[in-house]
Amino acid sequence: MSLLVTGTIGIDSVESPHGKAVDVAGGSALYFAYAASLLGPVRLVGVVGEDFPSQHVDMLRQRPIDLAGLETRKGSKTFRWQGKYTPDMNDRETLGTQLNVIAEAPPKIPEGFRDSQFVFLANTHPAIQRQFIDELSGPKMIVCDTMDLWINNFRDDLVKTLSCVNGVVLNDAEARLLTGRSHLIAAARSVLELGPDFVIVKKGEHGSILCTADAVFLVPGFPTLEVKDPTGAGDSFAGGMMAYLAQRDRTDVQAIQYAIAVGTCVASIAIEGFSLDSLKSADRDTVMSRMARLRASTHFDVG
Amino acid sequence: MSLLVTGTIGIDSVESPHGKAVDVAGGSALYFAYAASLLGPVRLVGVVGEDFPSQHVDMLRQRPIDLAGLETRKGSKTFRWQGKYTPDMNDRETLGTQLNVIAEAPPKIPEGFRDSQFVFLANTHPAIQRQFIDELSGPKMIVCDTMDLWINNFRDDLVKTLSCVNGVVLNDAEARLLTGRSHLIAAARSVLELGPDFVIVKKGEHGSILCTADAVFLVPGFPTLEVKDPTGAGDSFAGGMMAYLAQRDRTDVQAIQYAIAVGTCVASIAIEGFSLDSLKSADRDTVMSRMARLRASTHFDVG
Repeated sequence: MSLLVTGTIGIDSVESPHGKAVDVAGGSALYFAYAASLLGPVRLVGVVGEDFPSQHVDMLRQRPIDLAGLETRKGSKTFRWQGKYTPDMNDRETLGTQLNVIAEAPPKIPEGFRDSQFVFLANTHPAIQRQFIDELSGPKMIVCDTMDLWINNFRDDLVKTLSCVNGVVLNDAEARLLTGRSHLIAAARSVLELGPDFVIVKKGEHGSILCTADAVFLVPGFPTLEVKDPTGAGDSFAGGMMAYLAQRDRTDVQAIQYAIAVGTCVASIAIEGFSLDSLKSADRDTVMSRMARLRASTHFDVG
Repeated sequence: MSLLVTGTIGIDSVESPHGKAVDVAGGSALYFAYAASLLGPVRLVGVVGEDFPSQHVDMLRQRPIDLAGLETRKGSKTFRWQGKYTPDMNDRETLGTQLNVIAEAPPKIPEGFRDSQFVFLANTHPAIQRQFIDELSGPKMIVCDTMDLWINNFRDDLVKTLSCVNGVVLNDAEARLLTGRSHLIAAARSVLELGPDFVIVKKGEHGSILCTADAVFLVPGFPTLEVKDPTGAGDSFAGGMMAYLAQRDRTDVQAIQYAIAVGTCVASIAIEGFSLDSLKSADRDTVMSRMARLRASTHFDVG
């Protein structure tokens, strides 16, 4: 089934203890789309400025990414982000953010994309996320992301958006901030009360929690040692997860649990290189061989 | 096969946001033995003072815990610990420690216990752990615990002990402190270089990592919401794990992985009440029904 992502497309400059990457492709929707494209086609909706390098667009074209929703806005500049990871890679400092075109009117979902069945609303203002929802005609599953900025300053808007989606993806700090509860399962349950059918709490290297009204599922992080650049890990995770669900046309909880494992494997590939470098050399087989490793690492059975 | 534990037996006073418990049974070996006894017999070696309440001993007698190695030392006082958990239960403050009899000569392993096949050396001075090892005759598996005090101040002693054991159980902070590596799998691999065949890194609510020369296994934490008193969680974990291995007479990595899941379930019971309260009303069936829940929460399969 059709998969759509809306979110940022940007130019990143990143420094980590493992090196440096300047003016590379970044942004939530770009990471999502590229990650999802390892498993199947994806429709991308986003806006860039005139300065967005054509080689980044060419790179997207080499994958089954439909760019009919990629707007290049005349007279505008692309969103830019500069960041630096701490020596232990567990935290990062934002050195600079230039919203540029992101601060202007959001892009429109093209007519041909409005029938999309699986939709991921990557991190942006929750009111804009709702505008996107209004442009869709009967999707099967909408999942959104968010961040501390909206939780702190636009809480009412975010609560409204959460009442319109099927699922939400948060990291541990966001789940705690949104609910005021430190126990992550308790926090996830509080988020459920705001409307979504399922909540996914990402815990970085510790994996993720999937919470529904009836059940809790746990997926550990993929045991990788080669973390070069964690930028885009969450969006790559969501891309892998949603692509799997769209491919299988499934919205049941068992499929979501499996899809989270797929997303975990895709994200583990993404963080092993700067920008999209590692994802570029990966394909469905790379993901599926990591799924076998993750399964062997986590399924306990005694012979 | 026979299972032996050496370590502290004490009197605890604990405060958490969920209540207070004064002068309750505590200590690493006591938690281990009581937890292990849910699955099978265990031999306890430890020393208490004359003030150790007889009802605590009676409580141990109601389980298959062999107390031939429990020394009540005349003229000495029992080890005591007082602690308070933070509101989010993720940290605790030690309000007081009275080493008392623990600062005197360690207990001896009784003649009848020296043939023990599975041995857990709960947290104590690494030189004393080696003394215990010397008193044993050909065990199949020795696993030790340790703490920051020994890592910081008796590192050479600890390194010697690690070269004499099959496995070591550390928490995440201890693994990082011992190796200077923040990535937990990298830290676990560094510990392997000191001699043990396997390293288990406990990550609290995030579960645990099992590392051998060839493989990494991940077991998530049990998804419990009812944490009343985390005291003894690590020793209950080790008790459940080692009891399973001793019962099955297995030392292979597949069995250790499964045993870690068993320990995870046993620990999840322990922390739902103060002191041994929850473990008292549990049995093998309680553990096995949690194993089924943990499996359902963590094994991803798509129908």
